[in-house]
Amino acid sequence: MIEKLAIIGVGLIGGSFAMALREAGMVREIIGVGRSAANLQEALKCGAIDRIAPNAAVAVQDAELVMLAVPVGQMAAVMQEIAPHLAAHTVVTDAGSTKGDVVALARRHLPQHLAGFVPGHPIAGAEKSGVGAANAGLFRNRQAVLTPLPETAATATSLVRAAWLACGARVAEMAPEEHDRIFAAVSHLPHLLAFALVDEIAARSNGKELFGYAAGGFRDFTRIAGSSPEMWRDICLANRDALLQELDAYQSQLVRLRALLEQADGAAMEQIFNHASQARNDWASQKND
Amino acid sequence: MIEKLAIIGVGLIGGSFAMALREAGMVREIIGVGRSAANLQEALKCGAIDRIAPNAAVAVQDAELVMLAVPVGQMAAVMQEIAPHLAAHTVVTDAGSTKGDVVALARRHLPQHLAGFVPGHPIAGAEKSGVGAANAGLFRNRQAVLTPLPETAATATSLVRAAWLACGARVAEMAPEEHDRIFAAVSHLPHLLAFALVDEIAARSNGKELFGYAAGGFRDFTRIAGSSPEMWRDICLANRDALLQELDAYQSQLVRLRALLEQADGAAMEQIFNHASQARNDWASQKND
Repeated sequence: MIEKLAIIGVGLIGGSFAMALREAGMVREIIGVGRSAANLQEALKCGAIDRIAPNAAVAVQDAELVMLAVPVGQMAAVMQEIAPHLAAHTVVTDAGSTKGDVVALARRHLPQHLAGFVPGHPIAGAEKSGVGAANAGLFRNRQAVLTPLPETAATATSLVRAAWLACGARVAEMAPEEHDRIFAAVSHLPHLLAFALVDEIAARSNGKELFGYAAGGFRDFTRIAGSSPEMWRDICLANRDALLQELDAYQSQLVRLRALLEQADGAAMEQIFNHASQARNDWASQKND
Repeated sequence: MIEKLAIIGVGLIGGSFAMALREAGMVREIIGVGRSAANLQEALKCGAIDRIAPNAAVAVQDAELVMLAVPVGQMAAVMQEIAPHLAAHTVVTDAGSTKGDVVALARRHLPQHLAGFVPGHPIAGAEKSGVGAANAGLFRNRQAVLTPLPETAATATSLVRAAWLACGARVAEMAPEEHDRIFAAVSHLPHLLAFALVDEIAARSNGKELFGYAAGGFRDFTRIAGSSPEMWRDICLANRDALLQELDAYQSQLVRLRALLEQADGAAMEQIFNHASQARNDWASQKND
């Protein structure tokens, strides 16, 4: 049982984490803090949190677990604010989509508290944001990745692992760099590609006409281009090196495909499409798509 | 009322067209022909067709409307086969995803029948194929694009337009070249990009691990990479010029974005993401996504 849980940033992720732990009966009191007073009132009303703290410094006092669910761009300021107020037994985790940058910030701003710091990333969320979109089932059957530091105490990692398991998530552990390489490939690059396509089409003089004929394939392909621009700017900057590498690999692949198309090499193109189609369908059937 | 409708290729599209027209009470008899005997038996059983013809030449005799719903790669052979057997009053249409190539084939193989030829493209379909996936509602609230030739008789276009309206579709008319430019941008390029990404990731030594961490964004982005490799090979080859142009525009966009990422120009990246996100969400809300 967690006596006191502090949620810094009670949005989709922070709110859902709170609601899931409450539903699991794993927490006694939940304190929330955030930038938007209206959002915090909504969090209070829907039962995601029990109390609103005036600031993060107050919220973390005597907490057993602190969840930093703020945009990556606010992480440094939040860490600086809470650092002097963390008790020795307080475990701090986060839900950022990139981990190398969060680890670097923790080394800089929480150097006295690394034993209690467990970087994390729940693979969930959507185009929606705010506590209004939060729900206790958001992490059920999803993956949560923890990237503990060499300094992180095993007991701290265990607590965070137990919390995510109570949310219904599967938990994996890996190094922060490995996490960032993996997600550059399967998440950050696809987002960049979708933003790029929609921006390019929308900028054309006949953009409205083009959108008028776009159908289901376009809808699915571009769904992630509806995501938060601020959040994805931060993710791209935070994971710049790995993302540049992925982008280069993808551009090389497009150059190869372009050459095949120009040469009208149908057999080679079909081979690529076939390889992709089988891999996609195998993956989807395993994921019960 | 259409006395006799011939469906050449009773798959997802041909089968759904037949079922929708029957449901609308617009057709008396439906004759089907195709490559797979098992599929034709299924079409007979589920009521998509009334009779199986031994070949396309027999199927089209005395038909008022002939729907060519075969892969683009088979179109030439089918046109050659039916050409000597078309009555003067028989209207021929097709459901190919590209139109410039179909028009060229018709000029070559149906030169005596251009007045009765109405090229068409229903914007529907899915990753599934075969008559088992067909249903009478497939085209409801979807767009059907007709690209009549200068030679096409107005009465022929009217019949095909009426058929698509009876299927519940909206009907637009444009030149074949315009059709192909539009769909290169909003359909063919996204498919190519999705195939390219999945092939590239699946080819890596840690491909299985990467797929293991792929989640909802990846699932939507790559859904179209599960499409038929044969069909998409044909579409890419058929619309090669327009697709190369789209690919070039997209590659330029990626080069621009890569430079911004390398310079860590967050403001410029956010502007692009923001433009894309707004355009995507405006479009989706209009489409009731």
